[in-house]
Amino acid sequence: MVSDIIAQFNELAESLLKAEKETPALSYRSPEELHNLIDLKINSEGFDENNLVQLLKTIAENTTKTSGHRFFNQLFGGRIDIAVVADMLASLLNISMYTYKVAGVHVLLEQEIVNKMCSFIGFEKGEGIFTPGGSLSNMIAMIMARNEADQSIKQTGIPVNKFIAYTSCQSHYSVTKNAGIVGIGRQNVRQITVDYSGKMRLDELEETIQNDIAAGLKPFFINATTGTTVLGAFDDVEKIADIAEKYGIWLHVDGAWGGSMILNEKYQHLFKGAERADSFTWDAHKMMGVPLIASTILTREKGMLKKHFSEPADYLFQADDDFLNPGTRSIQCGRRNDVLKVWAAWKCLGDEGYATRIDKLRSKALYLADKIYQDSELQLLCQPESLNVCFDVPEKSSQQICDYLDRNGIIKVGYGVFKGKSFIRAICVNPEMTESDLDFFVEQVKAAATILD
Amino acid sequence: MVSDIIAQFNELAESLLKAEKETPALSYRSPEELHNLIDLKINSEGFDENNLVQLLKTIAENTTKTSGHRFFNQLFGGRIDIAVVADMLASLLNISMYTYKVAGVHVLLEQEIVNKMCSFIGFEKGEGIFTPGGSLSNMIAMIMARNEADQSIKQTGIPVNKFIAYTSCQSHYSVTKNAGIVGIGRQNVRQITVDYSGKMRLDELEETIQNDIAAGLKPFFINATTGTTVLGAFDDVEKIADIAEKYGIWLHVDGAWGGSMILNEKYQHLFKGAERADSFTWDAHKMMGVPLIASTILTREKGMLKKHFSEPADYLFQADDDFLNPGTRSIQCGRRNDVLKVWAAWKCLGDEGYATRIDKLRSKALYLADKIYQDSELQLLCQPESLNVCFDVPEKSSQQICDYLDRNGIIKVGYGVFKGKSFIRAICVNPEMTESDLDFFVEQVKAAATILD
Repeated sequence: MVSDIIAQFNELAESLLKAEKETPALSYRSPEELHNLIDLKINSEGFDENNLVQLLKTIAENTTKTSGHRFFNQLFGGRIDIAVVADMLASLLNISMYTYKVAGVHVLLEQEIVNKMCSFIGFEKGEGIFTPGGSLSNMIAMIMARNEADQSIKQTGIPVNKFIAYTSCQSHYSVTKNAGIVGIGRQNVRQITVDYSGKMRLDELEETIQNDIAAGLKPFFINATTGTTVLGAFDDVEKIADIAEKYGIWLHVDGAWGGSMILNEKYQHLFKGAERADSFTWDAHKMMGVPLIASTILTREKGMLKKHFSEPADYLFQADDDFLNPGTRSIQCGRRNDVLKVWAAWKCLGDEGYATRIDKLRSKALYLADKIYQDSELQLLCQPESLNVCFDVPEKSSQQICDYLDRNGIIKVGYGVFKGKSFIRAICVNPEMTESDLDFFVEQVKAAATILD
Repeated sequence: MVSDIIAQFNELAESLLKAEKETPALSYRSPEELHNLIDLKINSEGFDENNLVQLLKTIAENTTKTSGHRFFNQLFGGRIDIAVVADMLASLLNISMYTYKVAGVHVLLEQEIVNKMCSFIGFEKGEGIFTPGGSLSNMIAMIMARNEADQSIKQTGIPVNKFIAYTSCQSHYSVTKNAGIVGIGRQNVRQITVDYSGKMRLDELEETIQNDIAAGLKPFFINATTGTTVLGAFDDVEKIADIAEKYGIWLHVDGAWGGSMILNEKYQHLFKGAERADSFTWDAHKMMGVPLIASTILTREKGMLKKHFSEPADYLFQADDDFLNPGTRSIQCGRRNDVLKVWAAWKCLGDEGYATRIDKLRSKALYLADKIYQDSELQLLCQPESLNVCFDVPEKSSQQICDYLDRNGIIKVGYGVFKGKSFIRAICVNPEMTESDLDFFVEQVKAAATILD
């Protein structure tokens, strides 16, 4: 049985490897074209397993090569082999991460990773849990903040709603979205403006809080971003922590994107003050290079997750201490094993290997930024603070350039908007990218701009 | 690179297969024992990759064999080979399910599966999305219900909170938990009692709603369960739909566990009225046998998910129609590819193959139930309505029996509580289980009961 799995998988993996090498990008196909190319329809009758492996092969070949050298589109890319092996093993083992009875040693692996992350942040007595993504990690933080601001909410719901959250206008969209989800309301998130480099304005933050308090409202949550989605900018966590402390507001640090830069001591100054935060989001599937999803929510104080997310379930939590049953601290019930891949990669690389990886990524970003800066036809938007290289071709539409590169199967890259201006955002998160890949990227952007004249 | 992955994975998979055959259950080891046995600690220095594969092998051997023949503990178990292959391929492909630009053909696969599920339920113009688990699918339903009851909530938050939800006391714990999360409050979930077979009492449901309305409260959500967690009981959806319609309340059907029984027409009468529900949770990682997690939330009306979960993000949603960008309908931003494994399994089996599978599972459950019923030393709690076989050894502690079987590495099975009485809950969700496996299970329970005298 498992030997069939291996044989089938071997065939698929080899075909994918070949496709990644030969066509590292992927030509655009419309839904209609894909439906014509691949028999996607499920029928009453079954379908021969060998033919199905061939179909899966065609699907794999027609999937964006996020590990290829033409992918600059997202906050993830590349592939750490041992992490992929571990994640495949997780599919084969197929446990659920709620109890020690079923998840056993994997509960200990999760503790090891969470403790490791907490020690980097400076959460000396912290804890944490893996979640299904940065948006949900941020949501868990907002729920804890809301419930700590009013201890009755878990039981009796939100009373007359006066809660106000604060985040920069450059923060991830999940902060506003989550306010809509947890009953606070999207309008009650104050979008604080940013300075020229994309950092939240501290004077405006404090003034807004003071005005809200004067108006009888209840500030309950400040989100500081370490690595914004578009620019890769870092908020000044230390100064925001001062404000949070002064007004008694929960401080959350959204390090979903940039959090992993803490793994290299050269960049640890960017996180100064994070040890005073109440919670921290860290996605290992971004800069740490493991397959999606591997997000964590970490808290400074142990017991917070259980306090706000435990629910009695005697059919489930029936053996072992609660501390060994992560389901008592999770927003989910059944939960995929997302930790094994992170543990395998970190064990393999060690702290030192990850420090080196972060430096390598950073040097790729700086190489690309410098190349763009030196080029008179291109305009660098700002010096990258992490791995986001933002630039444009003056008087050309960034959107049209990105679409052209995508539709013609040359490069996947996206655009962003900052202060009303649209620009190309290239993410340098795959350490296998060579300088010639980056050179190719710049050439192709320029060529596209010329064609679009 | 990928060839290393294959070689390493082959070694791990073969070792796991051997362990599953030789030790289908797993002896209990304490956290201390596991720490002594396996070098779990991550160090500054890296760790040799070949040695790491050996460590992963030891971890695999020391993981509960959820696909083994001694696992009756959870609402999942067993393994459909092609689904595992597809899930491993998903790890290797590593896309994120937010946009057509990145996820391409996988967006179409998700549409195919969701449409298929909707057509079984009778949601003629329905839609849906994969989520990270049944609890979150149920949460998404509750948020839609809350926001439909008061259209201002997404923007301005919950006003003076008068919302009341209804569910049976045998429903999954996530209903109450979610009320605590989305700002309704745990206390505002009415736990309606059940009849002798575990179905929600309809007279009590309607009376409670009437009382709440008379008290000036706002009923907004009824949860009907098709396949309760402990007994596997089905609420009477048709009659609950009448009540929901009469009082204008959102009806959600939690079919996380039993939903897949709709795949065999023999059991479709259990879902009568589900086509009138507003939303439906269906977990494919349970009876449909694919690896965790593969949960879906389905809605009768197209547009509901976008209405309540879209958030503008011009850096992300920048090409293609919104309908091709599932991120505009998701609670997550980055999202793992959970659909590929479901599509592969369903394509392979066809509707007919799944109908056969459901019947096979049901016949295993009935075989076990009958065997227990015939045995004078055992007491069957009730005739199973789905795949949960609940029974006890009179005058013996079910908890002690389960713990004994687990700690001695004989069988994994859990206990449940119904009307204050504790009993053993055996789940027959692995079609590979033979009658002799089920006979062995009964013998071992009886043997444990004798030893515990």
